[in-house]
Amino acid sequence: MEPLTIISEGHLIDNGLLSEILNLIITEGFDYTIDNFHFGKRPENTSRIEISISGAEPKELLLSKLTPLGVFEKGASEGEFHVVDRDRHAPEGFYSTTNHRSEVFTGGRWVPVEEQRMDAAVVRSGDRLICTKLRDLKKGDEILCGSDSVRVYPPRIEGKAESFSFMSNDVSSERSYAVAAARIAEDLRRLKERGGRTVVVCGPVVVHTGGKEALAAMIREGYIQGFLGGNAVAVHDLEDFFYGTSLGVDTKSGEPTHGGHNHHMRAINRIYGYGSIRGAIEAGDLTGGLMYQVIKSGIPYCLAGSIRDDGPLPETVNDMIEAQRQYAEIMKETDLLLMLSSMLHSIGTGNMTPSWVKTVCVDINPAVVTKLSDRGSGQAIGVVSDVGFFLRELCSQLGIEYSVPVVS
Amino acid sequence: MEPLTIISEGHLIDNGLLSEILNLIITEGFDYTIDNFHFGKRPENTSRIEISISGAEPKELLLSKLTPLGVFEKGASEGEFHVVDRDRHAPEGFYSTTNHRSEVFTGGRWVPVEEQRMDAAVVRSGDRLICTKLRDLKKGDEILCGSDSVRVYPPRIEGKAESFSFMSNDVSSERSYAVAAARIAEDLRRLKERGGRTVVVCGPVVVHTGGKEALAAMIREGYIQGFLGGNAVAVHDLEDFFYGTSLGVDTKSGEPTHGGHNHHMRAINRIYGYGSIRGAIEAGDLTGGLMYQVIKSGIPYCLAGSIRDDGPLPETVNDMIEAQRQYAEIMKETDLLLMLSSMLHSIGTGNMTPSWVKTVCVDINPAVVTKLSDRGSGQAIGVVSDVGFFLRELCSQLGIEYSVPVVS
Amino acid sequence: MEPLTIISEGHLIDNGLLSEILNLIITEGFDYTIDNFHFGKRPENTSRIEISISGAEPKELLLSKLTPLGVFEKGASEGEFHVVDRDRHAPEGFYSTTNHRSEVFTGGRWVPVEEQRMDAAVVRSGDRLICTKLRDLKKGDEILCGSDSVRVYPPRIEGKAESFSFMSNDVSSERSYAVAAARIAEDLRRLKERGGRTVVVCGPVVVHTGGKEALAAMIREGYIQGFLGGNAVAVHDLEDFFYGTSLGVDTKSGEPTHGGHNHHMRAINRIYGYGSIRGAIEAGDLTGGLMYQVIKSGIPYCLAGSIRDDGPLPETVNDMIEAQRQYAEIMKETDLLLMLSSMLHSIGTGNMTPSWVKTVCVDINPAVVTKLSDRGSGQAIGVVSDVGFFLRELCSQLGIEYSVPVVS
Amino acid sequence: MEPLTIISEGHLIDNGLLSEILNLIITEGFDYTIDNFHFGKRPENTSRIEISISGAEPKELLLSKLTPLGVFEKGASEGEFHVVDRDRHAPEGFYSTTNHRSEVFTGGRWVPVEEQRMDAAVVRSGDRLICTKLRDLKKGDEILCGSDSVRVYPPRIEGKAESFSFMSNDVSSERSYAVAAARIAEDLRRLKERGGRTVVVCGPVVVHTGGKEALAAMIREGYIQGFLGGNAVAVHDLEDFFYGTSLGVDTKSGEPTHGGHNHHMRAINRIYGYGSIRGAIEAGDLTGGLMYQVIKSGIPYCLAGSIRDDGPLPETVNDMIEAQRQYAEIMKETDLLLMLSSMLHSIGTGNMTPSWVKTVCVDINPAVVTKLSDRGSGQAIGVVSDVGFFLRELCSQLGIEYSVPVVS
Repeated sequence: MEPLTIISEGHLIDNGLLSEILNLIITEGFDYTIDNFHFGKRPENTSRIEISISGAEPKELLLSKLTPLGVFEKGASEGEFHVVDRDRHAPEGFYSTTNHRSEVFTGGRWVPVEEQRMDAAVVRSGDRLICTKLRDLKKGDEILCGSDSVRVYPPRIEGKAESFSFMSNDVSSERSYAVAAARIAEDLRRLKERGGRTVVVCGPVVVHTGGKEALAAMIREGYIQGFLGGNAVAVHDLEDFFYGTSLGVDTKSGEPTHGGHNHHMRAINRIYGYGSIRGAIEAGDLTGGLMYQVIKSGIPYCLAGSIRDDGPLPETVNDMIEAQRQYAEIMKETDLLLMLSSMLHSIGTGNMTPSWVKTVCVDINPAVVTKLSDRGSGQAIGVVSDVGFFLRELCSQLGIEYSVPVVS
Repeated sequence: MEPLTIISEGHLIDNGLLSEILNLIITEGFDYTIDNFHFGKRPENTSRIEISISGAEPKELLLSKLTPLGVFEKGASEGEFHVVDRDRHAPEGFYSTTNHRSEVFTGGRWVPVEEQRMDAAVVRSGDRLICTKLRDLKKGDEILCGSDSVRVYPPRIEGKAESFSFMSNDVSSERSYAVAAARIAEDLRRLKERGGRTVVVCGPVVVHTGGKEALAAMIREGYIQGFLGGNAVAVHDLEDFFYGTSLGVDTKSGEPTHGGHNHHMRAINRIYGYGSIRGAIEAGDLTGGLMYQVIKSGIPYCLAGSIRDDGPLPETVNDMIEAQRQYAEIMKETDLLLMLSSMLHSIGTGNMTPSWVKTVCVDINPAVVTKLSDRGSGQAIGVVSDVGFFLRELCSQLGIEYSVPVVS
Repeated sequence: MEPLTIISEGHLIDNGLLSEILNLIITEGFDYTIDNFHFGKRPENTSRIEISISGAEPKELLLSKLTPLGVFEKGASEGEFHVVDRDRHAPEGFYSTTNHRSEVFTGGRWVPVEEQRMDAAVVRSGDRLICTKLRDLKKGDEILCGSDSVRVYPPRIEGKAESFSFMSNDVSSERSYAVAAARIAEDLRRLKERGGRTVVVCGPVVVHTGGKEALAAMIREGYIQGFLGGNAVAVHDLEDFFYGTSLGVDTKSGEPTHGGHNHHMRAINRIYGYGSIRGAIEAGDLTGGLMYQVIKSGIPYCLAGSIRDDGPLPETVNDMIEAQRQYAEIMKETDLLLMLSSMLHSIGTGNMTPSWVKTVCVDINPAVVTKLSDRGSGQAIGVVSDVGFFLRELCSQLGIEYSVPVVS
Repeated sequence: MEPLTIISEGHLIDNGLLSEILNLIITEGFDYTIDNFHFGKRPENTSRIEISISGAEPKELLLSKLTPLGVFEKGASEGEFHVVDRDRHAPEGFYSTTNHRSEVFTGGRWVPVEEQRMDAAVVRSGDRLICTKLRDLKKGDEILCGSDSVRVYPPRIEGKAESFSFMSNDVSSERSYAVAAARIAEDLRRLKERGGRTVVVCGPVVVHTGGKEALAAMIREGYIQGFLGGNAVAVHDLEDFFYGTSLGVDTKSGEPTHGGHNHHMRAINRIYGYGSIRGAIEAGDLTGGLMYQVIKSGIPYCLAGSIRDDGPLPETVNDMIEAQRQYAEIMKETDLLLMLSSMLHSIGTGNMTPSWVKTVCVDINPAVVTKLSDRGSGQAIGVVSDVGFFLRELCSQLGIEYSVPVVS
């Protein structure tokens, strides 16, 4: 291979990045020599390292794997842009983005990439560089190829103070999540004060486990700025409001109700009668619950359709391309993302979220957090707990009152 | 309430139906007197019972809850059909179907309901009665209201010999599933011989756990007549074929490969280059794997889109209404349904499947089978195991050979 | 086989017992004819059935399987008692007990069996019949053989009003367990008032998840009459009290503390310095926490040793035979058993508990309840939730105050 | 605090140790300056770093937390040994061991610690230093206090080539474990050839899931040198041999057998009749199965008692102190430890195992591996799969034949 010298700059040794870089070089079958290592002597100092790499394989592949770790080639080449030959088909060697902040060396300077998300191509549009999904590529677009002109900033390399550092990424049900709730409550309060943006991804389990009143109250009090879910959470919320059941279980007494399956279809039909959930609110038939609060509060929301939907409700977006577009729109500029027990929608949201967005995933199944992380959303912190209790604790920590359904 | 006398006929005492009926009456706050009980003295005999019910509440609600248990009103009333006043809005009291075989008393006789599925309305079309989703109702349709003219036949009441009776519905990882594999293999063989129909619902875990070669071989040998999945299983299969990884893990050596995330996008782009998966096959670029086998074998398939999709692939159906339609089409006349580790698509398929279709759900997480059952697919039998090993065992039991990837 | 006629009396059809009986006869390869069926016409009436059984196999085995369902042979034979030929070795055909109330026909009358538990032999001691573990059999003991003189009363057959009927036996995390907490709180209150007996089986997760203050407060307020656990729950409670950590995680801030592993050994050593936990209390060093409250309240407790113990603490009972004896002693006359996230100790306790003791099992893992049930404790009701939150909710429902650790 | 300068030497940057060290200093509230950093320029080189630490808190605590990471104080002090004032009570500041190889600076040189295990005190016995459990301390023993004379060698610092490097420590069911089986088979073969030592920790699930024939065959063929388990695995193995069931489920047909609970008590009683399992073998009654193979092969084994035991069997060791002693004896010089689906015994074994022993934990529940790791056995590699299939695959990879029970 041609000689390759790489550089990495930032917080390298206090966060494990350097060891990941060196390990990767070895496991990929290359050899290295550290040419230069200016290490930060004190915690606040950054480090800078230069490493020469040799090996039999071509360097391009290795470099493409090092890039996400914040490594860039010494004497960065100018970015090469190739023209898309047919709609939604990138040239073979296109650069596929990570979810970390990135820059490309072009026109003699480092240009930041906009609308950062994972799994996108980088399209040049005048002076700007924009993350674009493969399916949105148009014939004639100029897109970045290769990774030798790319510099990525994983949050670690920037030494970002993690307000959630209290929670490690491990996934265990052997933790006290009352403490986690207190910290997240602090964050919610701070974000509300400074006009920040918290978005929830919400599964139907929030309704089944009795967490919907707490979540609705958080929306009412202005702690939530966006609501992402599917058809099911809305159906079960409406079923609960109109018939007092959720998946056929009485949400007040906890007793299974024969005929509850029935109820969710009746709830859908009742909404069909008004043409929409909003219609049912305007008609004065729907006067409480989660969807009522979402719509009344005027926060943006999207209910994405799925193959398992009943109905679906009129507000459900059945075209997945459009649903992803709406999700991405709502996720813009989000500071805090609360994933509440919906693996499907959480992975979907994670795919479009930059790595610097604080992400908390609450699920009783520890495997959900592992799956998120395996799919690139490594920033997600796991709360392995009962989402109903967790939301109630969050409200209690926030000092929000809400009416608890009376147990009969 | 008006007096209500109900009848139930069939296998009532050897399968717990009678106790469910009596319990339901009590827990719903009613009282009963057994007027007549002709019980089958011998196992092959059926029973017949007449029960008078009294109570304060109106009888309609109770009857609607008893109907799914195979109960019908003595002196069945003629079915009442009401006219739909606007598209996709049923009259308030519409009858919502179960997934069991059903009949309606109309025109002085019991008329069977067609295209049985759960959560549908029953539309009268000439002499025929057809299950119709709420969203497909048209203004002017005549649909059945109330349940006092309905008779439902849960499989138990018909004393159906269960070839899977060896497996109870319980959900435990403390079982030997090699035995289950042997029984399912027997069924697959029998169905193949008599031209029956086996459909698989397949999640990406089949690829991750190394089960795809086995499944592809079963398709090749004619054991599978339909393939239902999502975008992800196809993407990971193609990623594996083109780049030897799945979710970034080398499927041959098991070693995590840096840059694997990358790979699945490159696989999608490669397909985009041919316009479709089929295009890649025709061009001679895709010559093996699961989707190759599905397409080459000519069995019908549907990849349903979802909010978490990358790409999606050209063959993925992004409109959920259309995807449900295609799924339902492929499910027609199915004898055996194998759900392979995809909760989302399994619940979706369960919703449209009559209760008499043998259904096996293989998942490492016992909660998936519980969820299926809570959503009405009570016939699903759980195999709490590793789907990769399970599919290999199935092939071994079927005596099918396939090339195992060499471990490097 | 010789002709066999069986009888069953009680609540047979409203609880599924009859169908279990008939099914069992068939699946065991026998045939039946119902000779007589006097069914309860109204809910409060019991039923009585006589069934003739024929088949090739000897009847003894079948009868032994029918007995636990409340079936007994028509014209009950006198119980046969055989003499134990060597210590702890029963004659081949010994009757092995269930956990249901039982009687034996001997001396011309039905004699109740004392100290009912599962998996015991029945020893005749004068006029009395006493459940005795195999290992406690002495040479010369007279023990019951065969099941043709036994009558078992599963709770269902007696139509016991289930105060927990609100909770089915299903195992799902898709429930609102705030409701369950409210019902259990009611029970705790009622039992306290009438001088009943509630025993907890407590795993270390109660400490890890921050539930120990709530449980200690329940003990302080007199809601708990016995405490069963192992070495680990005590060690982690003491570690938390002395060093503020549990499994090395700071229980106040939630931050992992380096050196926490260390802490639990220091806690053990500190107790060794006083000779016992009680010693540390008397010396004024241990002034709070769970074990402090257990010991100070004077309720009986047992910490059973295990192969995974560190230390163990002086109070830990390291001989398993003795530990089982103490557990059984504490379990005597228990009305309500709360199993708090310890599979090992819960199964151990379940083995020695009659089926009429109300049993609630709280665990974040649904498989634990399934395992309990597979091992005979079918009465256990599952609460699939976060035990820390659950105990706090219980306290809140009981109106008990306790100091919550301050989050720093 | 007094000035503290620490040194670390070895593989520091290619395995994340350095970042852990620096992070720990900061999170514990101290400050650092890197005085000297001689980094290995090439992969095979080791590094050496000197770091000055300042802060308000006393240095002892910090140092005790740094020691397990391979850090030692510059100008190592002579180890201080204090005398034990009463049996099993160490002086407050005793050094508590990790499971990594360790040395203590005493008599002017670094003396290796013997019988390394976690959670022990270090007793000086002449020139030797021996890990001793707190409970085994005798009045008058001299034990090491403080950690300023200790040097620990975590495997990473020694750059140990990991033959299992192919498997990361992550815990996911989304992997192909056929590949893992192939690698472990390689290791088993290599160990057998060179006279190494493989020990299994075995839970009853191995019997329930049909893995016992495969494991017995591996023992027969000389791949296993020690067997650790509890009473339950032996009981269910014997139940299966004598009655063909396991937990009441027919292990050949998979059909639940009424009366199976019964069977395991009869199996125990049958063994009681011979006085021991070995007695039943000698009498020619027990001629196959897992315990038969273990005893016949003459490998050392220990069945540890527990609070949940039925019987227990005569061979079960009911005193936990003695059981731990026997386990530790069998674990001596072990090269490979296979933990087969027994959380209890696996944690117990992990506690007494040095970190350099290769450890594989096979369990269908991902939380088990997390728990092991949280309790200090960080070297355990997780195989989240069905243990029955996994053991069969292992045999197939090893080319071992065994008779599979015929499915009837």
